[in-house]
Amino acid sequence: MNKELLYTGKAKDVYKTDNEDEVIVHFRNDITALDGGKTDSLENKGRYNTLISAKLFEVLESKGVKTQYIDLITSEEMLSKSLKMIPLEVICRNIATGSLIKKYPFQEKQELNPPIIQFDYKNDEFHDPMLNDDIIIALNIATKDDLERIREITRKLNSVLVDFLKEHGIILVDFKIEVGFDKDNNIVVGDEISPDTTRLWDIETGKNFDKDIFRKNESGVVSAYHKVVKAILTPEEQKKWNVE
Amino acid sequence: MNKELLYTGKAKDVYKTDNEDEVIVHFRNDITALDGGKTDSLENKGRYNTLISAKLFEVLESKGVKTQYIDLITSEEMLSKSLKMIPLEVICRNIATGSLIKKYPFQEKQELNPPIIQFDYKNDEFHDPMLNDDIIIALNIATKDDLERIREITRKLNSVLVDFLKEHGIILVDFKIEVGFDKDNNIVVGDEISPDTTRLWDIETGKNFDKDIFRKNESGVVSAYHKVVKAILTPEEQKKWNVE
Repeated sequence: MNKELLYTGKAKDVYKTDNEDEVIVHFRNDITALDGGKTDSLENKGRYNTLISAKLFEVLESKGVKTQYIDLITSEEMLSKSLKMIPLEVICRNIATGSLIKKYPFQEKQELNPPIIQFDYKNDEFHDPMLNDDIIIALNIATKDDLERIREITRKLNSVLVDFLKEHGIILVDFKIEVGFDKDNNIVVGDEISPDTTRLWDIETGKNFDKDIFRKNESGVVSAYHKVVKAILTPEEQKKWNVE
Repeated sequence: MNKELLYTGKAKDVYKTDNEDEVIVHFRNDITALDGGKTDSLENKGRYNTLISAKLFEVLESKGVKTQYIDLITSEEMLSKSLKMIPLEVICRNIATGSLIKKYPFQEKQELNPPIIQFDYKNDEFHDPMLNDDIIIALNIATKDDLERIREITRKLNSVLVDFLKEHGIILVDFKIEVGFDKDNNIVVGDEISPDTTRLWDIETGKNFDKDIFRKNESGVVSAYHKVVKAILTPEEQKKWNVE
């Protein structure tokens, strides 16, 4: 299989395949936070994020939410649809925490129902600024119709994953997704859904199973990600991918 | 007339009257910029902003846009409706400049058609952060219906003032308004519309007639405001208010 690098991001590489409608997404062990100000490489992180993303994409597909996911090649490589990405970070919050409570007078852990959806501009030069619909349209990032479709997809995705994770002892606090157009011009969920891009709290203890551990300079990042893998993969899936 | 102070802001004081539905707004000479980091007091500034705001409110009322304006008492004091203010800074931009081009990849002087409307939270403690509709609703600042009404009012106001100012040699680049509920629960334009709260460019030379002169530490702030008064008030109005 041809392995020409198409794109390299902060934590993933995307490779060409012989089929122009498909790419291989390789999840690296790199981890970054604070607008790139904090970086590290953590053994097994790429593998766990691959397995978690694949599982969540499968759950979403089974509930009618279209994703880039085709199949796992290895436990670090995902065969995915080629997407024309929309440069948005689509953020959805069920519980107020993190930057939201620094920026606005919400109470820590305040429930947000309906969830808050926010669009940030995926643009390193401008440091991913928050957008509104008028600015998105004026910058030709997406149309009004696209935004309505993205909001619908985000709400559906949120509802599916809140339920699925709850069944496995995890609260979905908030998440960031990225979306793009597939070859049939459907808006499809791309990128990843992992502890790097979500806040996941233990339903019993309230402890983080996510990148906040890294942001806060605490230890146990990878072991928390490992717990998520153990919580959501079936025993058969764990055996197949040699999750110890 | 009773002159009990109800509220004091960065550039205006609001006084009670004997009628609970009416207040007196006194425009002071104080001027601030850069989130309060730069302040000064400029002779005649309060007077010019009063006359300009009154004139623009009159123009708006004549075109069916409801404002707080009842009458001028002196050239520094406006008799106004009592409003229950909504803590939003409603920003509307026809041309990209200032903070917009620092924050996003727009070209300086790029035309924005339709205009971009943005809501910032009027909250000193949180430094007036930008909002989106979901956050506004979650913070109970306004309802979805209120936001639609505010957008309609803003677009109408913009269209009326763009035309009026153009007839008088001035380009309305952008502006900030504040709105509130009157006693009949109408959403009404309050605060002021002046060179402190708008960007106004000379249609011939492109020069600023607004607070950007102050922000940039240049001289001639009050003489620019004076030019706006001379441009938009009729000779009779100038005579009435002793505009030299």
